[in-house]
Amino acid sequence: MKALLSAALILASAALSMPALAQFQKPEDAIKYRKASFTVLAAHFSRVGAMASGKVPFDAKLAAENAAIAESMGKLPWAAFGPGTDKGDTRALPDIWTEQAQFKAGADKMQAELGKLAAAAKTGNLDAVKTAFGAAGQTCKACHDDYRKE
Amino acid sequence: MKALLSAALILASAALSMPALAQFQKPEDAIKYRKASFTVLAAHFSRVGAMASGKVPFDAKLAAENAAIAESMGKLPWAAFGPGTDKGDTRALPDIWTEQAQFKAGADKMQAELGKLAAAAKTGNLDAVKTAFGAAGQTCKACHDDYRKE
Repeated sequence: MKALLSAALILASAALSMPALAQFQKPEDAIKYRKASFTVLAAHFSRVGAMASGKVPFDAKLAAENAAIAESMGKLPWAAFGPGTDKGDTRALPDIWTEQAQFKAGADKMQAELGKLAAAAKTGNLDAVKTAFGAAGQTCKACHDDYRKE
Repeated sequence: MKALLSAALILASAALSMPALAQFQKPEDAIKYRKASFTVLAAHFSRVGAMASGKVPFDAKLAAENAAIAESMGKLPWAAFGPGTDKGDTRALPDIWTEQAQFKAGADKMQAELGKLAAAAKTGNLDAVKTAFGAAGQTCKACHDDYRKE
């Protein structure tokens, strides 16, 4: 069981880093890409947040659109955390590369919660959006706390 | 892979109806956002280009996936060229704001050609991808020549 488990973890980390090798010519390209995808994600996520917190009036259509884009963007950054992308213009902590399984679990959780937020926003129910936004925000914070420099 | 593709489709349809105003709190947020969305777009577009030019072997599935994401990303930057976003950390030329109709025509043309590229990539025909990639690349270049500082 232990052997199977560690094999699964190796596989998981391989799957996480394999696409990165083929997709970026230089580590700095991967770093720039992942930061850019988080920037776009954050812009759309925060628009839903502004409605969830009452800072701007709730507009169900806008919330659904922005949550859908946030969900899509949430799938992109992870392939850009490949080997060799730990150094450079990045706040990513080295633990990402020594705790690949945990990092991937956090990334998966974030994507799952963004999926729930998009689904909640589609219903047009503000309370559901508030709940899902809070849960999704927690997954952002958890990863930032553990894997991003202050 | 399927998830990424369907995410790209959601991105595409959601982005269509985003209003330009009231999305960014500060001009520098808009500038950062549009540069980030171009960065992500360019990464996926150039992966198709590497196959179109024969630098890497043609992989129909990867080409289709990257072209779909490029098409989706191509819809995002334009809302971030609002009033007041002409100054700051940007290579955008002032002509963008005095030639709005021409600028929008260029942006529309680019999106149309990225749509054709995504359609071509879906067919799995490398020659069609080469042709569509060239046409799309021309629309990038046209706008950069006219509206971006060297």
